[in-house]
Amino acid sequence: MSEVVKSFAAHSESSPLAAWEFERRDLQPNDVAIEIRYCGVCHSDLHTARNHWGRTQYPLVPGHEIVGVVKAIGREVSKHAVGDWVAVGCLVDSCQTCGSCHDGEEQYCEQGSTGTYGSLDRYGQPTQGGYSSAIVVTEHFVLKMPETLDPAGAAPLLCAGITSYSPLNYHKVGPGVRVGVIGLGGLGHMALKFAVAMGAEVTQFTTSENKKAEAERLGAHHVVLSTDRTQMKAHFGQLDLIVDTVPVPHELKDYLLCLKRNGNLVLTGPIGLQNPPLNNGLLMMGRKSVSGSAIGGIEETQQMLDFCAKNGVTCDVEMISMDYINEAYDRLEQNDVHYRFVIDMATL
Amino acid sequence: MSEVVKSFAAHSESSPLAAWEFERRDLQPNDVAIEIRYCGVCHSDLHTARNHWGRTQYPLVPGHEIVGVVKAIGREVSKHAVGDWVAVGCLVDSCQTCGSCHDGEEQYCEQGSTGTYGSLDRYGQPTQGGYSSAIVVTEHFVLKMPETLDPAGAAPLLCAGITSYSPLNYHKVGPGVRVGVIGLGGLGHMALKFAVAMGAEVTQFTTSENKKAEAERLGAHHVVLSTDRTQMKAHFGQLDLIVDTVPVPHELKDYLLCLKRNGNLVLTGPIGLQNPPLNNGLLMMGRKSVSGSAIGGIEETQQMLDFCAKNGVTCDVEMISMDYINEAYDRLEQNDVHYRFVIDMATL
Repeated sequence: MSEVVKSFAAHSESSPLAAWEFERRDLQPNDVAIEIRYCGVCHSDLHTARNHWGRTQYPLVPGHEIVGVVKAIGREVSKHAVGDWVAVGCLVDSCQTCGSCHDGEEQYCEQGSTGTYGSLDRYGQPTQGGYSSAIVVTEHFVLKMPETLDPAGAAPLLCAGITSYSPLNYHKVGPGVRVGVIGLGGLGHMALKFAVAMGAEVTQFTTSENKKAEAERLGAHHVVLSTDRTQMKAHFGQLDLIVDTVPVPHELKDYLLCLKRNGNLVLTGPIGLQNPPLNNGLLMMGRKSVSGSAIGGIEETQQMLDFCAKNGVTCDVEMISMDYINEAYDRLEQNDVHYRFVIDMATL
Repeated sequence: MSEVVKSFAAHSESSPLAAWEFERRDLQPNDVAIEIRYCGVCHSDLHTARNHWGRTQYPLVPGHEIVGVVKAIGREVSKHAVGDWVAVGCLVDSCQTCGSCHDGEEQYCEQGSTGTYGSLDRYGQPTQGGYSSAIVVTEHFVLKMPETLDPAGAAPLLCAGITSYSPLNYHKVGPGVRVGVIGLGGLGHMALKFAVAMGAEVTQFTTSENKKAEAERLGAHHVVLSTDRTQMKAHFGQLDLIVDTVPVPHELKDYLLCLKRNGNLVLTGPIGLQNPPLNNGLLMMGRKSVSGSAIGGIEETQQMLDFCAKNGVTCDVEMISMDYINEAYDRLEQNDVHYRFVIDMATL
């Protein structure tokens, strides 16, 4: 029972995304077939579609912030039922046998996890993402969407959300913890919302004076213009954890000075970024660290969705129709989005 | 009761160290006066004497790996008695009121701790180090030397020892933990000895094939020639913690690949080192971190000395006389020492 699905795909690095039909794999015993209702637009979609990382195989259907409804299940599926609202993020498979998978951290699978698009699935077929009418995913990688969560606003939680939630969760952020967030884009505004919802005292760093009111609206307790050294100095030695969401190379020095002893600055990507070199004294004085974090595991992603439902956290989104995707990419390149485009897949 | 002491001092960045007499401060109520018996020669001594860091005030008496015997105590001293074997490391004072000092981490004093040489003491006088016949130090910063520890071999524990012990201790190294050590010099050979004594499985990285037997003699379970990529690859994903003691800029990439998920590479100095920039993916994939660590606090230094006494750990030293110091510096610049020079201060 394989199915031909509609989609929007990139056919080369320079051509606009356009309508394309392709076949999803036959439903396997552990597979869930999902009718896609909403799909978030991640900056990685654009990077991959335009081959910025040099590894893209065409045609490519982007999209890894997927929310939809189960339309069929394989005979061994027990976790999901037809009609359930579900979600799929950046991963659709992993070895399930290594230490990372055993610990529920499939994103760090030692065999390499399978991306929702641009990978090969276990049957050797290219994976294709969520800018499509339906997707077939092995049940372990399908998340349950809490009923009270707005499905459109929830779509970006599957990448932007979990990427910012995971480091806060790993470092046990809660009341009494002082968190800094660098950047106020798709990831940054989620890191800010999460840290506030977790009860932390949150400092938002931004290079734009005009984002101050916006950061405060989103719950920031302090907003610091990072280009103003006097403002930065006033926050030296204050923070336990900084989540750095800036997607372009940048100096870390002053941010490291904002950390307290034993503080940690977490780089959240995109992978491939190379910041200017650091003087090791910035780390040695106060036993500080720079670390990295990539999305989250399946169990943690479910935990994040449940946290969002309980705390009323969703992404601020701008809904678009499928045929607006090329304009959306152009606007994304100019940072002209607050804070995430989500495609209404009924328009496909 | 101030005292004129004999010493060897640098008088300029280019002149050899030479005999010099100066006055130690009057014994204050909390002060301990120590007759110095042994003093280790740290690479920082050379850097400071030759003004490599551009901050040296002359004349300068180096030396912060000091072992000696108490010769007098102030009237409020309760921790030490005349005749006790004691030790002094890199710090002789700190504010004693900030959070770091409160937590026994005087090395990270928020007001800046007072170095054993090249700082100003609380009375505004320049501090002068251990290449001298005696030193006066406030009692909190004087360590008790365990009786069973060889005092000459123990001298370098006060800097090289604590610098390598502290990150192992902070990260709770013990049986079942896999530790890597980069570099087999003064710091590196101590990191190796400590990690082995703590019960860890230790991998020594070196660029010199001919250090293999030596690393094994010191207890390494594995020795890896870091310039051989095939050897390095065989250790990818293996280590929980790496202590990096390399004193010159170097690539971290392959070492980070040797870390397991959640692993940490600790830079131990010297402060001012700038390694080549890192691709953030090396940190993101596996939630790895690069951190720093500087010496240790007074309580931790005492704990380290007691650990050494219990486990029979000392530094491998080459004893020298005071008038050999300039040749020793020249040899130090050529890495020609196994593994630390210690001055027999009876020769002053």
